[in-house]
Amino acid sequence: MAEKKRKVGILTGGGDCPGLNPAIRGAVIQASALGFECLGLQEGWKGMITGEAVPLTPGGVAGIINQGGTILGTSRTNPYKKENGVAAVLETFKRLGLDALIAMGGEDTLGVAAKLYRDHKCPVVGVPKTMDNDLSATDFTFGFDSAVTLAMEAAERLVDTGRSHRRIMVLEVMGRHAGWVSLYTAISAGADYVCLPERKVDLEDMVARLRAAYARKKVALVVTSEAVDLGDSGQEELDEFGHMILRKRGVAEKLSEIIEKQTGIETRNAVIGHMQRGGAPTLFDRMLGTRVGVKAAQFAAAGVFGQMVALRGDEVVPVSLEKATGALKIVPAEWLALADLLCTGAAVQAASAAGAR
Amino acid sequence: MAEKKRKVGILTGGGDCPGLNPAIRGAVIQASALGFECLGLQEGWKGMITGEAVPLTPGGVAGIINQGGTILGTSRTNPYKKENGVAAVLETFKRLGLDALIAMGGEDTLGVAAKLYRDHKCPVVGVPKTMDNDLSATDFTFGFDSAVTLAMEAAERLVDTGRSHRRIMVLEVMGRHAGWVSLYTAISAGADYVCLPERKVDLEDMVARLRAAYARKKVALVVTSEAVDLGDSGQEELDEFGHMILRKRGVAEKLSEIIEKQTGIETRNAVIGHMQRGGAPTLFDRMLGTRVGVKAAQFAAAGVFGQMVALRGDEVVPVSLEKATGALKIVPAEWLALADLLCTGAAVQAASAAGAR
Amino acid sequence: MAEKKRKVGILTGGGDCPGLNPAIRGAVIQASALGFECLGLQEGWKGMITGEAVPLTPGGVAGIINQGGTILGTSRTNPYKKENGVAAVLETFKRLGLDALIAMGGEDTLGVAAKLYRDHKCPVVGVPKTMDNDLSATDFTFGFDSAVTLAMEAAERLVDTGRSHRRIMVLEVMGRHAGWVSLYTAISAGADYVCLPERKVDLEDMVARLRAAYARKKVALVVTSEAVDLGDSGQEELDEFGHMILRKRGVAEKLSEIIEKQTGIETRNAVIGHMQRGGAPTLFDRMLGTRVGVKAAQFAAAGVFGQMVALRGDEVVPVSLEKATGALKIVPAEWLALADLLCTGAAVQAASAAGAR
Amino acid sequence: MAEKKRKVGILTGGGDCPGLNPAIRGAVIQASALGFECLGLQEGWKGMITGEAVPLTPGGVAGIINQGGTILGTSRTNPYKKENGVAAVLETFKRLGLDALIAMGGEDTLGVAAKLYRDHKCPVVGVPKTMDNDLSATDFTFGFDSAVTLAMEAAERLVDTGRSHRRIMVLEVMGRHAGWVSLYTAISAGADYVCLPERKVDLEDMVARLRAAYARKKVALVVTSEAVDLGDSGQEELDEFGHMILRKRGVAEKLSEIIEKQTGIETRNAVIGHMQRGGAPTLFDRMLGTRVGVKAAQFAAAGVFGQMVALRGDEVVPVSLEKATGALKIVPAEWLALADLLCTGAAVQAASAAGAR
Repeated sequence: MAEKKRKVGILTGGGDCPGLNPAIRGAVIQASALGFECLGLQEGWKGMITGEAVPLTPGGVAGIINQGGTILGTSRTNPYKKENGVAAVLETFKRLGLDALIAMGGEDTLGVAAKLYRDHKCPVVGVPKTMDNDLSATDFTFGFDSAVTLAMEAAERLVDTGRSHRRIMVLEVMGRHAGWVSLYTAISAGADYVCLPERKVDLEDMVARLRAAYARKKVALVVTSEAVDLGDSGQEELDEFGHMILRKRGVAEKLSEIIEKQTGIETRNAVIGHMQRGGAPTLFDRMLGTRVGVKAAQFAAAGVFGQMVALRGDEVVPVSLEKATGALKIVPAEWLALADLLCTGAAVQAASAAGAR
Repeated sequence: MAEKKRKVGILTGGGDCPGLNPAIRGAVIQASALGFECLGLQEGWKGMITGEAVPLTPGGVAGIINQGGTILGTSRTNPYKKENGVAAVLETFKRLGLDALIAMGGEDTLGVAAKLYRDHKCPVVGVPKTMDNDLSATDFTFGFDSAVTLAMEAAERLVDTGRSHRRIMVLEVMGRHAGWVSLYTAISAGADYVCLPERKVDLEDMVARLRAAYARKKVALVVTSEAVDLGDSGQEELDEFGHMILRKRGVAEKLSEIIEKQTGIETRNAVIGHMQRGGAPTLFDRMLGTRVGVKAAQFAAAGVFGQMVALRGDEVVPVSLEKATGALKIVPAEWLALADLLCTGAAVQAASAAGAR
Repeated sequence: MAEKKRKVGILTGGGDCPGLNPAIRGAVIQASALGFECLGLQEGWKGMITGEAVPLTPGGVAGIINQGGTILGTSRTNPYKKENGVAAVLETFKRLGLDALIAMGGEDTLGVAAKLYRDHKCPVVGVPKTMDNDLSATDFTFGFDSAVTLAMEAAERLVDTGRSHRRIMVLEVMGRHAGWVSLYTAISAGADYVCLPERKVDLEDMVARLRAAYARKKVALVVTSEAVDLGDSGQEELDEFGHMILRKRGVAEKLSEIIEKQTGIETRNAVIGHMQRGGAPTLFDRMLGTRVGVKAAQFAAAGVFGQMVALRGDEVVPVSLEKATGALKIVPAEWLALADLLCTGAAVQAASAAGAR
Repeated sequence: MAEKKRKVGILTGGGDCPGLNPAIRGAVIQASALGFECLGLQEGWKGMITGEAVPLTPGGVAGIINQGGTILGTSRTNPYKKENGVAAVLETFKRLGLDALIAMGGEDTLGVAAKLYRDHKCPVVGVPKTMDNDLSATDFTFGFDSAVTLAMEAAERLVDTGRSHRRIMVLEVMGRHAGWVSLYTAISAGADYVCLPERKVDLEDMVARLRAAYARKKVALVVTSEAVDLGDSGQEELDEFGHMILRKRGVAEKLSEIIEKQTGIETRNAVIGHMQRGGAPTLFDRMLGTRVGVKAAQFAAAGVFGQMVALRGDEVVPVSLEKATGALKIVPAEWLALADLLCTGAAVQAASAAGAR
C-alpha cells in the first residue's frame, strides 16, 4: 500500500449505446483487481482535453450493468480537430499520471486513439462500439443486439396495426453504410422486404413481392436502412420537392409514397430514431460489454497498447487499432441470399403455394 | 336447439388499438353463453355495407386476448358519407338476420351507431375506444394504458441517450384534442416539461424550467402532444420555412429547434407514431376490454339498445350513445396542477434546494 | 427562510411492492413545494424506534419513479410488539421535530398508525399498500397492477411450454385472503380454471372443465391463489405425507398431483414467489403511487390526520384509518360470475360448439 | 411440376425451448424453395412411430417466428425404448415417402437420429437444442439466450425486493450438468455469488463474500444451478430431514437455509422452473434458430446426412451426429475465473475499498 498505485483512465466517445456501462464496469472491476486506480474521463476525448475526471471504484460501478447510455457522458469532440487539442490530451496524460487509457467508441474515437499511439506512444487500449455492427475487425460490437431487439419489437407493433388497417407498413432503422440493423430486424420480425445500403432497391421487384405478401396476409412489412439507393424514382421526387425537403424527410416516408402509389394499397411509415439508442442492455450486450471491458483492463495491465479488443468466434483477442479502424464490414452475399430467401421468398412461395391449392 | 338462435354482429371501426381483441373475445364468449350466434363484420362499417362477415365462436377467439389490433379489421368507412351507405347497412341487418349489433369504435364509429338507432331503431350497442382517452362519458377507454405504457418506455430510452450526450430530448405522442397521453407519459416517465393542447405553451417558462432541470441533471425531457399552440414563436418560423414544410414537420421538431436556440443546449426529438398503436394489450386494457365486451353482449341480450358501455368508477354502466359521442373530456385544472407540480416544479425546487445547500 | 421549516417524516412498512418509490417521490415533491423539510425513516416503524432517518429532497427522489421496491427500506417491526416500542416512537417524533408522518404500508403498518393517532394524537397520514388489492376502503392499491402483470406474463410462458408438451399447467400466485391476483391473472391470461380463497374448489367440476379445454387445445392452464380450500381430497394426501411436507409444498404442487391423477394428463406447476414483488412499476402503479403520495403530503400540510388516502372512482379521498384497516375486500359474486364465464365457460362452450360442428 | 416432389419431414423432441419455431420456419421456407414438400411429424419421435404428420407450407409458418414452444409438439418418446419402435419409424419413412428427416432436439433426440443413420442409413439431419448450452459441438444453441434473459430479469426483480427488505436472495436456474445458465445469469444480473455444477461450493468462501457484499449494499444475490455439490453441510441437513424431502426441496431452499444460518441475515429464495421454457424467442434465438433451420434444409437437399448443424464462430457448419451427441461442454477455467472476478471479486474489493477510504 506504500507503493503508488498505477492509474488507468476510461472514456466513452461518439454516439452512445447499450453496453457501454457493462464495459466500463468490467474494466473498472478488473483493473482494480489488478491494482489500478481508475479514473473516468468526462464526455469522451473532451475530458482528456479539459482533464475533467472522476474516480471509479468497483463498488461505484457495481449497479450499472443494466443501465443504458454511459455514466461517463460522451461527445464527438476530436482533439485532432481542436486547436491545441492533442497537446492538451498529452498534458492530461501527464497531469493525471495515467499509465493507461481505455478508449471506448466507434471509428472516430478509436481513430484518435490509434494516432495518439502511433505518433506519441500513448498507452491506449481501444474498445469498439458501433451500433451498426459495421466494423470488420470484430464479429460483433455491443449495442447492436439491444438496438435490433427494440427495432424488432417496433416492427411487430407496426404489423399489428397494419394488419388491422389492411396496410403496408415501412419501418426505418439505423445504418448509414451497412445494412446489418435492417437485415437482422427484417429477418427476426418476419418482414416481407428489406432495403439495405449494400444494393440498389429494385422497386419493381419490391412492389411485386409486397403485392404477393399483401394478397396472402392483408398486411406487409418493409424494413429499410436510413440510407438506401432508390434510383431514378427517388431522384424525380427529389427534383419536385427540392433538396432541403428530402433531407428532412426520411427514406421511410419516401418509400412509403412510392409503394402506395404503385400498389394502390394504403401505406404508413415509422422511424425509430433516438429511441433506438437507449434502454437497458440485452443479455448479449451485457455479456459482450463485460467481456471486452475486462479484457481491455487486462491488456492495459499487461502493457498491450495500440490494440483494440475484438470478438472472434468465442474469444476476445487484440487487433491493431491502426488496422482495425476504418475497415467497414458490409453485408456479404451469403447474408443477402438469406434475406432474399426469408424476407421475400416466403411471400412469393406462399402466394404460389396458395395458388397451387 | 330446434329454435332458431338469435344473432349478434360485431364490428370494430376507426383507428385500431390494443384492447379491441379482448373486447371482441369477451363479447363473443358472453353472447354465445347467452345463446347467440356471433358474426364478425369485416373492417368496420364497411362490412355492414358489403355484408362481409365471418362466424365467431368462443373457441375461435379464446387465444386472442393478448393480440394487438383487431382480428375483424377496421376502416374509417362511414355509411352516412357513402351513397346508399345507410340503405346498404339496413339491408345487411335484414339479410344476415342480426338481432343486435355491437359497434366498437371512437366518436365517428359510435356516431353512426347513434344515428342508426335514432333514425332506424337499429338494435345497436356501442363500445367506446379512444386511444386518447378523451371521451367524457367514460372514465377510461381501453388502448390508452397500452399506448401510454409504450410512450413511457420510449421516454425512458430517450433520457438514457440524452443523459449520455448531455442533451434535452423532446418526445411527441398522440393527442389531437386532449393531452391525456402526454400528461400520463410525462408524469410516469418523470419528464421535466409537458406540452398539452389544453393550454398555450409558455415558451419563456418552459425554457427557464428546462435550464434549471438541465443544470441539475445534464439532461432534460419534454413530452408534447402532437397538437399544441406554440404562439407567435411558432408562426414566425412557419413563415421562414413555408407551409408545406411545417405540415411535414411535427411539433417535436419545431419545439426542439426553439429549445436549442433559446437554451444553447443540444436538443433532439423523436416521434412515436404508428408504433404506439400495436403491441400486446396491457393487463389494464385486457381487463377493461374484456369487461366492456362482456357487458355489451349482456346489453344486447337484454335489449338495451342505443346505449354505450361506460366505465364509471368500478362499474360498467350504460350511457346513451347520442349523449356520449362528441362530448370531449379535456385535462381539467386539477390535473394541470399536478403536471405543474411534478413535471416542472420538481426541477425548479431541486435547483433551488441545490442552491440552498 | 428565517422561519423554521415544518418537517414531515415518511416511512414504508410491511412487504414491499412496485409503486412505493413513486409514492415517496410524489410525497416529497409535494411536501417540499408546500414548504416542508422531508425525512425518510429507515425500514418502516423500526426507523421510528431507532430514529434512523435521511433527508429527502425533490432532486434526490426525481429519478426513482421507475424503481421497484422502496428506497427507504422496509420491515415488519411493530412498535406495539416491542418493549418500549411506542415510547421510542413518541420520543422520535419529538426529537426529530416531526410535524407530520406519512406511513405507507398494509394492514399492520397502518394499524400502528391508527393506534398512534387514536391514543397519542400523533399527526399521521396513511398510504395503503396491499399487493393483494384486498383493502375494502380503496378501489385499488398500487403494486397490484405490477404484480398481476408479471403473473400474466408468467402464465403465458407456461402455456407456451405446456402446449408444446401437451400438458396441463398450474400457476400459483399470491393471495392469502382474497383472490384478486389469481382472478385478474386468470382472466388476462385466458386461463381455463381459477382457484380462489373465496370458494372451495369443486374438484369434479375443475377436472371436467380441464378435460374439455385440453380436448380442444392440447393444453390447459389453471391459476390458483396460494391459499385455497381443496376439501377432503387435500386432507387425505396430507395424512399420507405428513404435516411438515404439506407446508413446504405449495397449493400448485398439490393441485397438480390431483389433476394429473384424475385426468391422466401430464401436469406441471410453477410458483411465482418473490419475483412477483420486484421490477419497475407499471404505468398504472406509477400514476396511482404518485397521486396518493402527493395527496398524502397535501393532507399532512392541511392537518388532516388519522386518515388514509383512498382511491374512489377517479378521485383520491381521505378515509378514517381506524375504519379502513382490517376491512377485507374479497372477490364478490359478480366477479366470480365473470370468472365462471371466462375461465371455464369458454372451454366448455368451445368444446360443445366443436362437438356441434 | 409433373415430377413428384421430394419430401422432407421435420420433428422436434425433448424439452421445448424458444427458437424451435424459428428453426421450423427456416427449414420449411428453405426446403420449399428447394422444391421439397414439408411434413411436420407430431410430438417428436412419437410422430415417426405413429406416422401422425401435417403438411407445412411457407405461408403456414410465416408468422411463427415470435412464438415460444414448438408448433409440432414434442415428447420424450424414444423409439429405441419402445417395442418395435425402430421398425415403426422405418415403416413411417417409407409410408410417408420421406427423402429426408430433420430432427431438432437435445442429446436424446439426436442420439436416436445418429443410430438411425448409422444402423439404417436413414437420411437424417440434426438440429441441436439444449437450453443449458452444454453441447460441445456447437458454440451456442438456441433457447439459451431466451432462457437466461428471463432468469436475468427475474434476478433483478429479486434484488429489488431484497434491497427493500435487507435480505440475501437466492435464485435457482436450470443446469443439471453444466453451469452456463447460472454463470450468464449471475454475470448479467450483477450477482454476488454463483454456484455451478462444475465445482463444489466453498460455503465458507461464499458466506464471507456475501457478508462483504451485504455490508456494502444491504442486499446480496446468489444465483445457483439446480444441481450443485454442497458438500458435508448439505449431507447433514439431508439426514435430518430424510431423502424424500430433499428431493422435493430444491438447491435454492437448501442454500438459503445455510446462508441464513451462517450469516444471520434474512434470506429468501425463488425457483424459475417451467416459466423459463416459454415466451417469445429473443432476437439472438430467432436469428440462430432461423439460420440452423435454413442450413438443415440445405443439407437435406444436398444429401448431407448423419450430420448436425453447428454454430462455429460466425458460421453454421456440419458436424457428425455420432461424434456430436454426448460430448458435454462444461464451464472452462477461464470462464470460472471471470465469474470469480465479477460475481465475487467486486463485492470483496468494494468492501476493502470502502474500508480504505
